[in-house]
Amino acid sequence: MTAAANRLDEMSPVLLMGPGPSCVPPEVYQALARPTIGHLDPRFLAIMEDIKTLLRQLMGTSNSLTLPVSGTGSAGMETSFVNLIEGGDRVLILSNGVFGQRMADVAQRLRAEVEALEFPWGTPVVPEAVRQRLAARDYDLVAVVHAETSTGVCNPVAEIGQLVRACDALYLVDTVTSLGGMPVTMDAWGADVMYSGTQKCLSCPPGLAPVSFSERAVAKLQARSTKVPNWYLDLTMIIKYWEGASRVYHHTAPINMLYGLYQALRCVLDEGLEQVFQRHRQAHEQLVAGLAELGIGMLVDAPYRLPMLNAVLIPEGVPEAAVRKTLLDQYGIEIGAGLGPLAGRIWRIGLMGHTARPENVARVLEALRATLPQGRAAG
Amino acid sequence: MTAAANRLDEMSPVLLMGPGPSCVPPEVYQALARPTIGHLDPRFLAIMEDIKTLLRQLMGTSNSLTLPVSGTGSAGMETSFVNLIEGGDRVLILSNGVFGQRMADVAQRLRAEVEALEFPWGTPVVPEAVRQRLAARDYDLVAVVHAETSTGVCNPVAEIGQLVRACDALYLVDTVTSLGGMPVTMDAWGADVMYSGTQKCLSCPPGLAPVSFSERAVAKLQARSTKVPNWYLDLTMIIKYWEGASRVYHHTAPINMLYGLYQALRCVLDEGLEQVFQRHRQAHEQLVAGLAELGIGMLVDAPYRLPMLNAVLIPEGVPEAAVRKTLLDQYGIEIGAGLGPLAGRIWRIGLMGHTARPENVARVLEALRATLPQGRAAG
Repeated sequence: MTAAANRLDEMSPVLLMGPGPSCVPPEVYQALARPTIGHLDPRFLAIMEDIKTLLRQLMGTSNSLTLPVSGTGSAGMETSFVNLIEGGDRVLILSNGVFGQRMADVAQRLRAEVEALEFPWGTPVVPEAVRQRLAARDYDLVAVVHAETSTGVCNPVAEIGQLVRACDALYLVDTVTSLGGMPVTMDAWGADVMYSGTQKCLSCPPGLAPVSFSERAVAKLQARSTKVPNWYLDLTMIIKYWEGASRVYHHTAPINMLYGLYQALRCVLDEGLEQVFQRHRQAHEQLVAGLAELGIGMLVDAPYRLPMLNAVLIPEGVPEAAVRKTLLDQYGIEIGAGLGPLAGRIWRIGLMGHTARPENVARVLEALRATLPQGRAAG
Repeated sequence: MTAAANRLDEMSPVLLMGPGPSCVPPEVYQALARPTIGHLDPRFLAIMEDIKTLLRQLMGTSNSLTLPVSGTGSAGMETSFVNLIEGGDRVLILSNGVFGQRMADVAQRLRAEVEALEFPWGTPVVPEAVRQRLAARDYDLVAVVHAETSTGVCNPVAEIGQLVRACDALYLVDTVTSLGGMPVTMDAWGADVMYSGTQKCLSCPPGLAPVSFSERAVAKLQARSTKVPNWYLDLTMIIKYWEGASRVYHHTAPINMLYGLYQALRCVLDEGLEQVFQRHRQAHEQLVAGLAELGIGMLVDAPYRLPMLNAVLIPEGVPEAAVRKTLLDQYGIEIGAGLGPLAGRIWRIGLMGHTARPENVARVLEALRATLPQGRAAG
């Protein structure tokens, strides 16, 4: 027998303003609940084809190998490294937050020779430092996070791309948090590998990781001297299911999650990328201005701020966890805590995808005004 | 701009009688579409706790480490091997189908010393052969598939378990296809590692892999000399999110898929395991009898047949792919093709979870009767 109460019956919606998941539009919920069909059904194969086409538009690429991996955004990271790295490969990670650190951890487990070029959390990667490092040594892969979810910093991935293109290294860009919320132009950046997640600016629940490999990356994959040491994420097999006429079964695709992604991509592209990006920028500006009225500042200097992930300095003396709990329990709003060295110093307020709307920004500002200690709220 | 037509609008239901996914009950679709909340929201943590409890009931175990991994059933296989194997470990795979072969491939990529003890496809693993092999050599891990989805064979996992328990090896059992459709009693079998999938007899769409580790398996995991060479599936980190008070973020859990699994587990346990297993057996018997009337036999001898995966011998001269296409296009019924050496020799008719009902068996029998060439249909 199961527990008496079904916890889903009382699952009221939350305004999701943390670092993801973000709010999901009704069309995407409906898509998730469409009838499951087989992973080799021609109607499903047609949806897979459309997903690849829609992803290419969103990612700014013409790469043939562009598909969603059957796991969350971190599985996209794992897929990118495990397919491209062989033991002893030299990898340079440009790191200024949790997700840069995570890339180093992933690559080390694959027995790469990993160097991390580190920058202070809350500041961007400095291209000149990258240029010097690339001049001093050869690397097989250079990796950077576009939108550092742990700090709210936007890294200059286009500039870094020019530097990496002057070398032989492959260029990997993490766009988990940026994709669908600000311009992402894989081919123009000269990126060889990119991955993302569904639960940020695509406003689909977590569970899939869009991944794209350039022809150079595919060539490196095909020239491996050893099998990919991860059967589940081996793209040499996965592409035989996602491409070509024979559609060789690898693992059973997560059908309904793919329905959700298909619908989420349609929502973004139907609204129009420029309109979507502008909506994110405007929500961000509204939030920053409203916080300033409350006397609350931002961790990151203005030119480097992400629109969709706002690292907000917690006013001194404010019990940060208690405020988050009040927001969630009394206002139905989730905001995120800081990670690592920023724990207790910042809140992370997400304005991602469907969440990034003026009425939602007004709600969180009002809730903060009412919740913060009086003197502080008076600003 | 997106393509004009939304392919989900015309997504009519299919009677899913292949090797999975299976038909999904309405409650599970509704669960998938419940509001997404945060992966650290206390209400979500409560659902996670319930899922662990429900899984333990279904898997027949009291193992603390029992949780769904964020990927499909094959990710469960990957998780089990990558967490327990270190380079040079000696692994014995008892193999009589595609999924035994897959285990060998997974383990070899992790640099295990893999031996496969092979049995003809369509026949079960023979315990006496296992006993002899175990007497001749020591292994770190012995692995077998309970319900071989590629052949419809049930392997004698309880008997094999007794043999493995007499050695030092860990015992791994794949229950992707059996869990929720026939008795699965992990602790009674002496199994140390078990994994499954959601899209078979649990009747939840694909996307999650329940996994359970015994205390012995956890001890081996904790005694590793190297980090798990797969960040995404590293259980030493994943359990810090799924267990304990601190709930350390690892990767964003697939929230809505977990809603679906939670509901699917409730459906199975609310109906009652005995009733569910009986429903599968009865549907299987009805199918076999009906096929016999059509002059169609089974690949597997009666004592070794699985109820939920029926390997059906294709009558000579029947165009097997054309029949499957007619069933899908004209009757809305999906059945599966054979894999590997059984391609063209068998159909695989799944009676899994919500699919395993008398009216569905009648539908597929009627469709086959109408579709097969006249002489054959007359039996």
